[in-house]
Amino acid sequence: MVHINENFLKLKSRYLFSRIGEKTSEYQNTHPDKKVIRFGIGDTTQPLPSTILHAFHRGVDEMGDAATYRGYGPEQGYLFLRELIAKFDFQERGADIKPDEIFISDGSKCDTGNILDIFGENIVGITDPAYPVYVDTNIMAGNSGPIQSNGQYEGLVYLSANEANKFCPEPPNHQVDIIYLCSPNNPTGVAMNRQQLTQWVNYALDHHSVILFDAAYEKYIRDDNFPHSIFEIPHAKKVAIEFRSFSKTAGFTGARCAFTVVPKDLMGEDSVGTSVSLHDLWNRRHSTKFNGVSYPVQCAAAAAYTEQGNKEITELLNYYRYNAELIKKTLQKIGFHYWGGENSPYIWVKTPQNLSSWEFFDFMLNNLQIVITPGSGFGIAGEEYFRITCFGNHEDTQIATERMLRWDWNELIP
Amino acid sequence: MVHINENFLKLKSRYLFSRIGEKTSEYQNTHPDKKVIRFGIGDTTQPLPSTILHAFHRGVDEMGDAATYRGYGPEQGYLFLRELIAKFDFQERGADIKPDEIFISDGSKCDTGNILDIFGENIVGITDPAYPVYVDTNIMAGNSGPIQSNGQYEGLVYLSANEANKFCPEPPNHQVDIIYLCSPNNPTGVAMNRQQLTQWVNYALDHHSVILFDAAYEKYIRDDNFPHSIFEIPHAKKVAIEFRSFSKTAGFTGARCAFTVVPKDLMGEDSVGTSVSLHDLWNRRHSTKFNGVSYPVQCAAAAAYTEQGNKEITELLNYYRYNAELIKKTLQKIGFHYWGGENSPYIWVKTPQNLSSWEFFDFMLNNLQIVITPGSGFGIAGEEYFRITCFGNHEDTQIATERMLRWDWNELIP
Repeated sequence: MVHINENFLKLKSRYLFSRIGEKTSEYQNTHPDKKVIRFGIGDTTQPLPSTILHAFHRGVDEMGDAATYRGYGPEQGYLFLRELIAKFDFQERGADIKPDEIFISDGSKCDTGNILDIFGENIVGITDPAYPVYVDTNIMAGNSGPIQSNGQYEGLVYLSANEANKFCPEPPNHQVDIIYLCSPNNPTGVAMNRQQLTQWVNYALDHHSVILFDAAYEKYIRDDNFPHSIFEIPHAKKVAIEFRSFSKTAGFTGARCAFTVVPKDLMGEDSVGTSVSLHDLWNRRHSTKFNGVSYPVQCAAAAAYTEQGNKEITELLNYYRYNAELIKKTLQKIGFHYWGGENSPYIWVKTPQNLSSWEFFDFMLNNLQIVITPGSGFGIAGEEYFRITCFGNHEDTQIATERMLRWDWNELIP
Repeated sequence: MVHINENFLKLKSRYLFSRIGEKTSEYQNTHPDKKVIRFGIGDTTQPLPSTILHAFHRGVDEMGDAATYRGYGPEQGYLFLRELIAKFDFQERGADIKPDEIFISDGSKCDTGNILDIFGENIVGITDPAYPVYVDTNIMAGNSGPIQSNGQYEGLVYLSANEANKFCPEPPNHQVDIIYLCSPNNPTGVAMNRQQLTQWVNYALDHHSVILFDAAYEKYIRDDNFPHSIFEIPHAKKVAIEFRSFSKTAGFTGARCAFTVVPKDLMGEDSVGTSVSLHDLWNRRHSTKFNGVSYPVQCAAAAAYTEQGNKEITELLNYYRYNAELIKKTLQKIGFHYWGGENSPYIWVKTPQNLSSWEFFDFMLNNLQIVITPGSGFGIAGEEYFRITCFGNHEDTQIATERMLRWDWNELIP
């Protein structure tokens, strides 16, 4: 008889965004005449910039000619892309990352989940609220006990991000081996400044911990005091793995390209205390269980680093920033409390009347036909908050904000 | 202190094809004037058929227009592709597989590795020789003890494929919970007929086992007595997961698209004997740790099912079949013993003079500038064999066979 991985049975419910998707479809099916506006999943809406599009086509063309056809590429990604990333994303910002420390992949979601393959038993610390994949993949990997009555899992360390600490939790005063940090943060939209990040790097150096640093939204940073990479902090190469993505910066949510930086200085320990290179382990994992990203997609990603590509990406970022400004203004007018939206495409908002997150989700869907993301989907500390994404198009954002302004918020919510 | 997954330390050496790649590069660097012909890794060389190429371009174009832009797709793949697969690859062959039992992914290598996420402790049986990913991913997942002096891992059940059983091992007379089968086989090139596969399905039904059936090369089957899918065998939906790929059939090694079929009838057990749907577990795994295949790539894959696309794919398969015929004729003339190459793009050959696989690899590289794959890289039963792939272009295959014919094989190999 074949035995299942019982850790899966500990998972409390379906993946957050699947549930939002289902509720939305259900509403849309029963109200086909209503225009539903999606501020839920952080999905981009604007087309690939033309320089990237041309490079994508060129890559496809090469696949159609025997002279330029590419079969299996290096599992770690083509050097032409890894070199561009090393230079522009790291070295030019003072972070000494080499091309062979960069692993191209098909998504940060995949990598943040798969990275657990290389780790053994550890005390895992996750900010709360957090991107659900961090928690769920730890449950699947058996890094927790059963779920508790409060909805948290036994054995995981939850680092509460709340109004008191301005949604940037400080390092704890006890041992945590693996720490998930995300900046600019999903879902709170709050970025960590140099001082806060240095505090975490120092904690990890002192405790021989590893920080899993999710920087998928770094391109939204406008303030120079916020590092784009954890490797801008001294000695971070000894304690951090960084996840980056082209999804939210170059519109690649449907094209699929990301990368993970595992520095060669980064070590873990086996049970007898021998140091083992995490770079070597991830390289082995990546080359055994992955087969490289589609060649034309890598060509497209590389075009993001051309002068023109970079210019077009900035325009794309500004398009979504315009939405952020509009939404923030709307929230101010209504009198909602919110955070983020400054160095981030996400805005984190307190629900009115202490409604629960899902109550407010239902309210917004049923009355304003706006899909938001319930904060509780990101952890118990997210209860009574919700996330708004700025990835809609201008027209939809305009309509949604008008609907919000028209609603009489002083009335009791039905 | 962060602890590593110590199972990785049990892995005996680098991934086979990386080692071949390195040895080949080393030779080429020291002999820049020599033309090395690669019969090693099973990598395609011929361009994408034009119908597929056009669909790929169309997909890219859609990404460049806000009206047709696609962000995140369903993690399981677009329905347009899953419906085509269900109809043409399964239902038309009498296998009752539904679109929602099909999960699109970026590669069968990834899926055959990642599938272990959903399983617990089991007795795992793997044919020997076998695609190295099966063994390596089981080691990583902790499904074995340490390596033994013979190079096999304690705790794994090796199902020897040898000349005596014509490289089709029969079911064992004891319990195995998970069984890896690959037909047409990589590396031996031998396909399992209906009777042999039925024997395995019946074994799995009797023992409540799950067969992980790798059918990445099914399109090479020419003989009607060989099933293309394990689901052509009665009741296989209760005992099998099937892996398929566009890599070797439509030239997608560099484009990246594959799929895995997990039937809804397939169950595993938890430790108290409750049945749990493996389809549900894989759906959860796939939607938590994967984010869908690039949209233009899925468009390209769908074009393989058009009438014209199918015709072009048959031409592509015939191109490689021509190589197989040429290589087989050459081996016959030289007097080598070989198997496969009939319903498969692989030919499995006995080394001359009982040379070890790597001795013969070095001999071929240094003297004939031909890269073959050492059989021992696929398991100890592969020692003194080597694999030739038929994925070269005609010109290279011609040159390589001429080199082989010119060599005086009666001479002692230096």
